[in-house]
Amino acid sequence: MEIVEVGPRDGLQNEKKLLSTATKVDYIRQAIAAGLRRIEAVAFAHPARVPQMADAEAVLAAVPRIEGVSYSGLLLNRRGLDRALASAADGFGVDEVNYVLVATDVFSSRNQGMTSAESLAQWSVIAADARAAGLRTTITIAAAFGCPFTGEVPVERVRDLVAAAAQAGPDEICLADTIGVGVPRQVAALAAAAREVAPDVTLRAHFHNTRNTGYANAIAAGDHGITVLDASTGGIGGCPFAPAATGNIATEDLAYLLKRNGQLTGVDVSALATTGRWITAELEVPTPALLGRAGPFPPEF
Amino acid sequence: MEIVEVGPRDGLQNEKKLLSTATKVDYIRQAIAAGLRRIEAVAFAHPARVPQMADAEAVLAAVPRIEGVSYSGLLLNRRGLDRALASAADGFGVDEVNYVLVATDVFSSRNQGMTSAESLAQWSVIAADARAAGLRTTITIAAAFGCPFTGEVPVERVRDLVAAAAQAGPDEICLADTIGVGVPRQVAALAAAAREVAPDVTLRAHFHNTRNTGYANAIAAGDHGITVLDASTGGIGGCPFAPAATGNIATEDLAYLLKRNGQLTGVDVSALATTGRWITAELEVPTPALLGRAGPFPPEF
Repeated sequence: MEIVEVGPRDGLQNEKKLLSTATKVDYIRQAIAAGLRRIEAVAFAHPARVPQMADAEAVLAAVPRIEGVSYSGLLLNRRGLDRALASAADGFGVDEVNYVLVATDVFSSRNQGMTSAESLAQWSVIAADARAAGLRTTITIAAAFGCPFTGEVPVERVRDLVAAAAQAGPDEICLADTIGVGVPRQVAALAAAAREVAPDVTLRAHFHNTRNTGYANAIAAGDHGITVLDASTGGIGGCPFAPAATGNIATEDLAYLLKRNGQLTGVDVSALATTGRWITAELEVPTPALLGRAGPFPPEF
Repeated sequence: MEIVEVGPRDGLQNEKKLLSTATKVDYIRQAIAAGLRRIEAVAFAHPARVPQMADAEAVLAAVPRIEGVSYSGLLLNRRGLDRALASAADGFGVDEVNYVLVATDVFSSRNQGMTSAESLAQWSVIAADARAAGLRTTITIAAAFGCPFTGEVPVERVRDLVAAAAQAGPDEICLADTIGVGVPRQVAALAAAAREVAPDVTLRAHFHNTRNTGYANAIAAGDHGITVLDASTGGIGGCPFAPAATGNIATEDLAYLLKRNGQLTGVDVSALATTGRWITAELEVPTPALLGRAGPFPPEF
């Protein structure tokens, strides 16, 4: 399994406290030092709407450039891509762009001001232009496991969106449980549906541990052909639709689980646990990750 | 899947604050009202060593007696069985006794003052006497996934203990991850080993979510022939070997996971979430369970 560290983006984006650019870069440096190689470092979003991500270009200008480390930037629209391309042209850009397609029209309209079909049309142009500029392209199907506004999302709906998204030739398609409602049976069903219509695309999943199902879903993902998982060190990020809820599955807890399960190598779980405690102290929030409280097992693990 | 509510025993036993008998009985009443049918209600332990369980007989005298509801009492030795039998003889007893066998000699000596082999010899007498008195008998192999004193526990060691424990003819054998270190691969290995040497015994598992692996283990248990799972409403209990750690997997979160996964019926997850918030308020501790913070999905679930 491969982990994409999304704490610098999905984690920080959903925390109230704004961190300095230097602290964000430190967070990213620590993730890389612990062995992570793919970092969703920024979002190219409107700074008034997402002030936590306003310094995207400054973060990218300051992160270490290391052979084998890939930085990704999330984007919702053409303006986001233009910023990603400008940044890349300066030599301090992202290596990948991750586009968001929301699985329901109601949520998509609130998030991007357009329906899912309109968002798909936008994606095909963005994917082509990003690829022409030499960037890897990934797309995340948000709310694939359930929508905060409309409830259950039919598997067929997600399957059709995956099929359409795959037409643009992405390097990876990510199935996201944005509000943390999913269970393993859904993971199996969505993975099978995605594989059916996009047999050659790498599948990735994004889980939140909002209702304590996130790690079970991560194991189910590995059992059903999904090879890439998002996680945030510290488990930061919360849920914008459930104010008291916890956030992304935590990288240190996921890494402990996968490593002890024989599915991951090359990641220092103790170092990640230390980073998780540190970043939550910086954010002045409790630590949803648990490994830092209990310690790895055996202790030298 | 069947859930055994262990909050009144394993949960309360490991919390600092002592609750009144009436509050304990209320906790049990709420679990039953939410649809749970097996309750580990008490431990028959030395009151100086486990003051949280000192009023075991008073709790049993006050709990509702309802057709289909089974109460269990944990015990470590002959004196515990004598109390269980005396209580049952009065008509206010347990329906089941759950004996503890610790998987390593070091931990067993600290817990019961004897080696695992000596504990097995004690178990065979206790099982026979309990059965003769009409009680169901279950045995929990504690620290089967790892020991806080000696580290890794070989699968062969657990297999041999299960084989020996099965000689006494228990109704159920429970594999317990007492310190919350286990992962799904271990669940599969231990379930297969237990099934090999005890093909006819019902298998049960006991998971702690100390490192966020507990719910993934619960799903793995169901995948590998384990049909009964322990959980505590609220997720109370902590871990005596990791002061800041969380406790048992939470009944409300487990019930949400299993119900949405198509593996459980007849349990009211919202009612359990309410009880989980209430009991942690009574104990003056944070709530490790997450469902009560985020709510079920869909909301009417």
